[in-house]
Amino acid sequence: MLTVSEALAAITSTVQRGPVVEISLEDALGQVLAESVVSDLDSPPFDKALMDGYAVRAGDLAGRTTFEVIEEVTAGRVPSRSVGTGQATRIMTGAPIPPGADTVVPVEETEFQAGVPDSILGQVMLRNSANCRAGQFVLKQGAAVRRGTQVMAAGRLLRAQEIAALAELGYARVRVIRRPRVAILATGDELVPAAQSPGPGQIRNSNEPMLAAQVQQAGAEPIRLGVARDERQALRERIDAGLQCDFLLLSGGVSAGKLDLVPSELAAAGVRQIFHKIQMKPGKPLWFGILERSTNESPCYVFGLPGNPVSSMVCCELFVRAALRRWQGLEPAVVEPIMAQLTANISLSSNRPTYHPAHFAWTSEGPRVSLIDWVGSSDVCATVDANCTALLRAGDHKWNAGDSLEVFLWP
Amino acid sequence: MLTVSEALAAITSTVQRGPVVEISLEDALGQVLAESVVSDLDSPPFDKALMDGYAVRAGDLAGRTTFEVIEEVTAGRVPSRSVGTGQATRIMTGAPIPPGADTVVPVEETEFQAGVPDSILGQVMLRNSANCRAGQFVLKQGAAVRRGTQVMAAGRLLRAQEIAALAELGYARVRVIRRPRVAILATGDELVPAAQSPGPGQIRNSNEPMLAAQVQQAGAEPIRLGVARDERQALRERIDAGLQCDFLLLSGGVSAGKLDLVPSELAAAGVRQIFHKIQMKPGKPLWFGILERSTNESPCYVFGLPGNPVSSMVCCELFVRAALRRWQGLEPAVVEPIMAQLTANISLSSNRPTYHPAHFAWTSEGPRVSLIDWVGSSDVCATVDANCTALLRAGDHKWNAGDSLEVFLWP
Repeated sequence: MLTVSEALAAITSTVQRGPVVEISLEDALGQVLAESVVSDLDSPPFDKALMDGYAVRAGDLAGRTTFEVIEEVTAGRVPSRSVGTGQATRIMTGAPIPPGADTVVPVEETEFQAGVPDSILGQVMLRNSANCRAGQFVLKQGAAVRRGTQVMAAGRLLRAQEIAALAELGYARVRVIRRPRVAILATGDELVPAAQSPGPGQIRNSNEPMLAAQVQQAGAEPIRLGVARDERQALRERIDAGLQCDFLLLSGGVSAGKLDLVPSELAAAGVRQIFHKIQMKPGKPLWFGILERSTNESPCYVFGLPGNPVSSMVCCELFVRAALRRWQGLEPAVVEPIMAQLTANISLSSNRPTYHPAHFAWTSEGPRVSLIDWVGSSDVCATVDANCTALLRAGDHKWNAGDSLEVFLWP
Repeated sequence: MLTVSEALAAITSTVQRGPVVEISLEDALGQVLAESVVSDLDSPPFDKALMDGYAVRAGDLAGRTTFEVIEEVTAGRVPSRSVGTGQATRIMTGAPIPPGADTVVPVEETEFQAGVPDSILGQVMLRNSANCRAGQFVLKQGAAVRRGTQVMAAGRLLRAQEIAALAELGYARVRVIRRPRVAILATGDELVPAAQSPGPGQIRNSNEPMLAAQVQQAGAEPIRLGVARDERQALRERIDAGLQCDFLLLSGGVSAGKLDLVPSELAAAGVRQIFHKIQMKPGKPLWFGILERSTNESPCYVFGLPGNPVSSMVCCELFVRAALRRWQGLEPAVVEPIMAQLTANISLSSNRPTYHPAHFAWTSEGPRVSLIDWVGSSDVCATVDANCTALLRAGDHKWNAGDSLEVFLWP
């Protein structure tokens, strides 16, 4: 039986990065950059006014208070005249500084007198030129980014900030790692859909909607395959459908029970087992394998998750997320835990390390974690209070409030 | 000029909660619950086996090691026989405990001898009944959730955990606050689309893709209206289109410049100004108003954001997010800042409080914040290093590494 870190190492050394696709910038939020992004221009592309006002020569500011206004330049327009000694161009924020000028005097510090009524030309007086610094309110060409500079490297998750930078740099289309398609198949004769009232001995299928939401949160596209009964033929057909995707997640059917058909049906479908069972709680029966394809196609990675929904949830966050991150090129694939102090005393006896659903909060005193109150790994309603798992080591232990635990945050 | 907290108070007292819609659970991730969720059944709905094994009577464990196996119950099936003294029912994880039995002995601790070859009936021997506790591996009906219990209240953001609980509780459809539709309109003669190479005096339109991504991150649906030129007719037509949505965000055209037409064109379209200009940096020209409609329709809330992309980004996270949260029914609408220690000395002189783009990290020593290195509020490429703003108070101040600042995290 592998340890959790051996299992994670096996997963991240098996999963390969997914294929690259080019998409519209409009669709890029939450995707992962597959290329480095280099500026195709200086930013700003010209010396730019940072205020509405008058562009003048700094050398004129010492002795002179009145300037001849020779032109007006609004944003998006180009100056047609050079600014000479004693001259000024009226300029709007964002507009290019005219040749000759190097300093902007804000409009609030000036008084304008039109040469003829309503003319944009005339004379402007500076109220207090002593306030002006040479070069003020001008952003020099290339001050933010020089043409040819790398602004982002491949492997970056695209948030609003990156989308804005990509737009500025001209990436109307962008090369990203294709979103992984993740088939989800719940197994078990006891499962009925959420819309149905469970009959005697039945429970509702929470695993499929839950796993679909989890993989969406991880940036993948869920493909819902419904429920397979504990019967070879039905299971095999759904497995074959799921193997068309990049990942196949099954829940249930991986324990040692008589009806736990998943491992043998996966083997029959050509999926090679990488591991089965790990030293952890909940989630001991976890199964992981790969279907290699004969062509140039990328493989299908297969997880057999436990049937109990909380076990499935915990394993998905811990193992499937690492696999998806590796596929997407996000580093590190295995997100590091953070340390947090327990809020209450606990004691636990277990022969395996326990990843206990827990609530994590940043408080003014620092990071804190509280185990959620649950009745075990079928208690999915209790997880609405959880946003992480806390790691409790194997053995017979007591922990006191204030002790530090490793915490694995959920999205 | 309002302070930031006055502006936030004006926004959150103006914006009303959006309408309720019923959607499929499949589409519910990231939406906000509009109803309280009550369990329609006990969970588990029956006394349930937590292990594969044999269901027996606890009272038998003291004196007896051999039991007659009278039936097998797999998950999804129902026991047809009561378990009497000296009897056992073979049971799979998740299956209902038969009447009479109250304890499960795991299959690993037993040895089975079929009555006739391949029969499921026969005799089972317990290896060590001293290991067994009365009631073990049985989850009692209703132990997790009692029928009629409220599991979640309205106003909850739906993550994978909530989706799982909703599925278990039978909410195949769920009432949520409709996703707000947010029109986005960038203004300015200097703007060209990302796909285009800027000509002299032009820059690319990063505000539209950026704001679209920001509102998506906040759970809203962006409606992209392109760029309006600094010209009344063009601007007015786009504004009228945008006012069909729940929110309209404009960027640019709200300063005091000659071509800043946004406030007057909004007024002409019937939008009532709530405030214009706030005491902050960047973002001083922020404009906020409301279009009340004559019918039962909900109003359109309008933000005039600054044209500089980083100012627009900062104002969107600070103000538009609060408005969207109030509309969605997420509490608190205004997300509280957290305190973090500066990593380097800084000094700043400003007549208004500055919300400086910054990088926040939880380190093993606690929360830390570093201001990003930028050349001002047009420097959108610098924001790829930012994940928050840090608040620097107005005046002429120095801060030392280790000083605490209020930090406003971005999503």
